[in-house]
Amino acid sequence: MSISTSRQWVLARHIPELPREEDFRLETVGVRDPGTEEIQVRTLYASVDPGALARLNGATTYAPPQPLGEPIVSATLGEVIASGDARFTPGDLVAGGWGWQEIAVVPAKAVRKVTADDTPLAAELGVFGLPGLTAWFGILELGKPHPGATVLVSSAAGAVGSAAGQIAKAEGARVVGIAGGPAKCRYLLEELGFDAAIDHRAHGTEPELAAALRSACPGGASVFLDNVGGLVLDAALPIMARGGRVVISGLVADYGVPPERRHGLRNATSFIIQRLRMEGFVVYDYARRFDEARADLKQRVKAGTLLYREHIEEGLEAAPRLFSGLFRGENFGRALVRVAPPSR
Amino acid sequence: MSISTSRQWVLARHIPELPREEDFRLETVGVRDPGTEEIQVRTLYASVDPGALARLNGATTYAPPQPLGEPIVSATLGEVIASGDARFTPGDLVAGGWGWQEIAVVPAKAVRKVTADDTPLAAELGVFGLPGLTAWFGILELGKPHPGATVLVSSAAGAVGSAAGQIAKAEGARVVGIAGGPAKCRYLLEELGFDAAIDHRAHGTEPELAAALRSACPGGASVFLDNVGGLVLDAALPIMARGGRVVISGLVADYGVPPERRHGLRNATSFIIQRLRMEGFVVYDYARRFDEARADLKQRVKAGTLLYREHIEEGLEAAPRLFSGLFRGENFGRALVRVAPPSR
Repeated sequence: MSISTSRQWVLARHIPELPREEDFRLETVGVRDPGTEEIQVRTLYASVDPGALARLNGATTYAPPQPLGEPIVSATLGEVIASGDARFTPGDLVAGGWGWQEIAVVPAKAVRKVTADDTPLAAELGVFGLPGLTAWFGILELGKPHPGATVLVSSAAGAVGSAAGQIAKAEGARVVGIAGGPAKCRYLLEELGFDAAIDHRAHGTEPELAAALRSACPGGASVFLDNVGGLVLDAALPIMARGGRVVISGLVADYGVPPERRHGLRNATSFIIQRLRMEGFVVYDYARRFDEARADLKQRVKAGTLLYREHIEEGLEAAPRLFSGLFRGENFGRALVRVAPPSR
Repeated sequence: MSISTSRQWVLARHIPELPREEDFRLETVGVRDPGTEEIQVRTLYASVDPGALARLNGATTYAPPQPLGEPIVSATLGEVIASGDARFTPGDLVAGGWGWQEIAVVPAKAVRKVTADDTPLAAELGVFGLPGLTAWFGILELGKPHPGATVLVSSAAGAVGSAAGQIAKAEGARVVGIAGGPAKCRYLLEELGFDAAIDHRAHGTEPELAAALRSACPGGASVFLDNVGGLVLDAALPIMARGGRVVISGLVADYGVPPERRHGLRNATSFIIQRLRMEGFVVYDYARRFDEARADLKQRVKAGTLLYREHIEEGLEAAPRLFSGLFRGENFGRALVRVAPPSR
């Protein structure tokens, strides 16, 4: 079967602040055959990731900026249609980063083969993809909680936070989650086994949030894995335990907000008073250890100690709307679009 | 000789923001003889330290708050007048923390004996005291610059910053200092051998300061020893080199400023983009290693690789005025008052 066209979402204009659907344009383009060491893939799932916003304003950050008129880069899972590389044959499942397009031709070395096992495919972009890996390295390599330590996690019902909290719990920590709304908080307490949950929407000012954090962490938090930044991070600094570590895996409150309008961190004195350490990381820095971490994540899911939740919308069309909604906390679980069903 | 009265500066009221002279009260009190394991000391020098402000607003931080009506605590050097402890005899020189009083009775275990050597006495409260020790541990234990790395230091003409910069320079680093005013910048370049100096008064806005920092650190700063915080720290975060370390030894821009009026850190995204680590420390945590560090500092001073500068005013009376002036950058070098001359 020859496939001649593909639809793709491209960046219509740089996004200075928060994204809107009209910042993206759906195009239909022709598809070429794969060349040597290339494969042609049909997208099954594409991720919709808040961190991507950092690449959409035209500035260089930890990755080159997304060029205008090019398909939006995101984590993607697909099926090989045609292969110019001996390591891949049609029907193989692969994960990569070709993004929001139905059909893509990508270098074979830019994808990893996904072994069909008894875990759902979409999880390869979630708990077994960058979010799960971020949680794994953030807690086990950087946070390193001691048994009995209190671990605080923000965006705790999200893909990174929910995995991080459960991994910390398995390490023997007492886990406190921050999430938006009562449904997410109930999920943390009743389904994921968190020890406490704080609804940041019910504590919208810094004094209120600080009081809730202090009450939930009576001895202070030894580790804080933060995905949010801004007010949440600022309010948490004074409740960190002496020698506490803040691990920043994302700063979604700052993405798309010009520096002068961000909630700056005013509680820096806590760094001295409480001898805190704070560090930021990018999971790609651990790429050589992804297989080890993914194998461990799969064990945890099989053993039932690592639950996850996905927010999947149907069709590539949904991607920009879902993306915009992330910044209003509309999703509940790893946000993905299902672009096509697998052929078998 | 029996001394019956002593003058002392006490805290007249808690200081919510920046200090004024009227926040202090000079009192004359009776002096008692030392009891068992106590010594009576006559103060020769008392330090006037910006970090003390953190203890004067009535709140508990890394040390208990200064009580009202009690002598202001500060680093102090004195001579034993009378001793109730076998380890001390009159005439011994001791360093401690009894503070802004002419005569004090202190537990013998709360002081260290100062060996008379060929270094000036006042240096025991400066380059061989807490500021020098802070610089030593901040650079050698926490910053750990590699040869050729760029090390940024704020308050660079001050007691901590000037020592830190010179120690970093001796480690082979390229050293960039931030200081207030052309005289201090000239001192850094012409006397201390800094590679570049930035006058923050000539770059009063964040974009200006950021541009000056970027120009002075073309490859980014690998280590930043910060004594200031606020705008200076915020402007420096984006120019840190990948994997850079920020070591916070003081946050003088935040002391005495209510959180809502502080310059918050808005460039937290640099922690992710550049994989930064930031940590705060208190030099007392290294107390068991002070002798080792002090011996090394004395070697450096003797070898001429560690210069220092003192700002000494005459008389205990000067202490509150000098203290208030610290927050306007009026001093140039370690601020001390000379309370009395040694008896020999």
